[in-house]
Amino acid sequence: MKNTYFTPGPAELYPTVAKHLQTAMDEQIGSISHRSQRFRDIYKFADEQLRTLLNIPATHGIFFTGSASEVWERLLLNCVEHESFHLVNGSFSQKFYDYAQSLRKFAHKLEKPFGEGFDAAEIEVPEYAELICLTHNETSSGVQMRPAEMHKLKRKYPQKLFCVDMVSSAPYPDLDYSLIDSAYFSVQKAFGLPAGLGIWIANQACLEKAERLQRYDATTIGAHNTLPMLWKHYKTYETPATPNVLFIYLLGKVVEDYNAIGIQTVRRHIDEKARLLYKFLETSDEFAPFVKNERHRSQTVVVANTKKPSNEVIAGARQAGMIIGSGYGKLKDSQIRIANFPAVSVEQVSALLAQLSR
Amino acid sequence: MKNTYFTPGPAELYPTVAKHLQTAMDEQIGSISHRSQRFRDIYKFADEQLRTLLNIPATHGIFFTGSASEVWERLLLNCVEHESFHLVNGSFSQKFYDYAQSLRKFAHKLEKPFGEGFDAAEIEVPEYAELICLTHNETSSGVQMRPAEMHKLKRKYPQKLFCVDMVSSAPYPDLDYSLIDSAYFSVQKAFGLPAGLGIWIANQACLEKAERLQRYDATTIGAHNTLPMLWKHYKTYETPATPNVLFIYLLGKVVEDYNAIGIQTVRRHIDEKARLLYKFLETSDEFAPFVKNERHRSQTVVVANTKKPSNEVIAGARQAGMIIGSGYGKLKDSQIRIANFPAVSVEQVSALLAQLSR
Repeated sequence: MKNTYFTPGPAELYPTVAKHLQTAMDEQIGSISHRSQRFRDIYKFADEQLRTLLNIPATHGIFFTGSASEVWERLLLNCVEHESFHLVNGSFSQKFYDYAQSLRKFAHKLEKPFGEGFDAAEIEVPEYAELICLTHNETSSGVQMRPAEMHKLKRKYPQKLFCVDMVSSAPYPDLDYSLIDSAYFSVQKAFGLPAGLGIWIANQACLEKAERLQRYDATTIGAHNTLPMLWKHYKTYETPATPNVLFIYLLGKVVEDYNAIGIQTVRRHIDEKARLLYKFLETSDEFAPFVKNERHRSQTVVVANTKKPSNEVIAGARQAGMIIGSGYGKLKDSQIRIANFPAVSVEQVSALLAQLSR
Repeated sequence: MKNTYFTPGPAELYPTVAKHLQTAMDEQIGSISHRSQRFRDIYKFADEQLRTLLNIPATHGIFFTGSASEVWERLLLNCVEHESFHLVNGSFSQKFYDYAQSLRKFAHKLEKPFGEGFDAAEIEVPEYAELICLTHNETSSGVQMRPAEMHKLKRKYPQKLFCVDMVSSAPYPDLDYSLIDSAYFSVQKAFGLPAGLGIWIANQACLEKAERLQRYDATTIGAHNTLPMLWKHYKTYETPATPNVLFIYLLGKVVEDYNAIGIQTVRRHIDEKARLLYKFLETSDEFAPFVKNERHRSQTVVVANTKKPSNEVIAGARQAGMIIGSGYGKLKDSQIRIANFPAVSVEQVSALLAQLSR
């Protein structure tokens, strides 16, 4: 009997993954050259499917890395000469900020307590900040920043580069890529694939910045997966180094499945399940939503305070074949995290809520 | 009917991979948390199996990256303050050198023409070079540097850090890790796995260097997969970011299969097939070994000059269900490359040679 994973990544595999993996094995995708037409077709297919799903315009390229964490480093190296600005309200936005410091950038941050979110009106971007780092969905705290607020902020600071971490929410947020210069995610969250592939979306403005920095003698944009190298190879749907060909194939196929359902329906299903989850938490005696402000509640990673020690709740669900996440870091023992990704159905969420009600 | 891949990576999958992949899917390895005991057991198992296979002592840690190319960057950032030294005799050793320049290191190189190899006696290491970058097997040209020569060189320069690229030869070279500070490979070559995972072996001396550099205000050792962060998490068999859990699982299982055969036997099988291949090339009217000096001929990537245009040879083999590689770069049209990895048997190599004799 298989478990159902409600964990916020790695997570439940999307139901079609096993079938696509079998096809990939039959077609020996794991052995084909990354310099072959077969691979270029696979890259092109994933690219086209993602463009359709996320409404990504031709101004933006789509690139593959080893993980989304790698993209943090690439963005800072390629798009920041001196200063970056980070909205920090959880462990992952904090890590991005830490990366900037490790790279000896002058990193500014605006910080909110764990569980609270940001709106555009309250944000002043420092004058010399070159890259504004937003997190759509804080996986650690279950807080979101609404796309409309991100777009508003960019309109206020049109000269600055804006990047959006949508690691644990893509394809949910409907970003306007005429306002968002770069966004990134990994595949083991809402795309329901095994971990091991990061997706980096970046536009010409990011590329131009990287090319400019590359010309300065004293600056390095890094050596591996630099944006100019990624883009150069992308023109023929190739990658600078050998990529994870198998997972790129699987991503293209799963995104094709999402497109067959339609992005509006995929998002509506997430909304529907999120309503069930939050309604349960609000009416339960045993649980309460951690994020107080409804506007800032994540649809894809639902965090709840538990009355009982969370490990009892988690163990009970596990016995029923349902795996839920613990709270993050210090909140490990008093919170649970429930991922609401496309791989779990309304019926599975209902079954989980029935279990949690016991 | 499936093809047999004699390409130098991505390559033929090892025959047990499909079975292990099925077990992984049955056990939902693609969904488990990278912070769970189940994952720590998987990491520990892969670590133990690799230690046994490659005779890696406790002084060295074993870490996972997205690719071996990523390791080039990590080594340069973590182990070089100012100067590196590169033995360059092909496209991949050249790329490592290029990475050093992109990272604004002062990179020295000793260069040989494509198809020629290095011996210790002819090498003078520049006085201030901190890291000596050796390539055991140049995938582009089919040239090897013998481990004994590498060891000899380190004995001559014991104060310097030595790293060995064994991307397309591990587990073939029998390295003495009391002399080699770091080595790395990727799994889509002689381990017969799909691409998407790099393995980085590094010792305490590398770690100490990274920790020292990290304390300097003006230096960065990077932010993602830094050696101190990798090592810190390694102590509990975890990784700083979400790794490719599935492929780490598969690697552990395939290495277990290699250990069941025994490393001596694995290496002897490679030797046996290499003898067949080179004997064929030396006695053929249509082909000739590219590497003239026998001492420098690779056992794992065999490169041949072709009399006919190589695309005719490749097309003929393809019709018979055998995929061989073209020459690298400028030699694309006049050479073929044949990988001699554990995934292909003596019988399969014999069948290929029968096809090439037609």
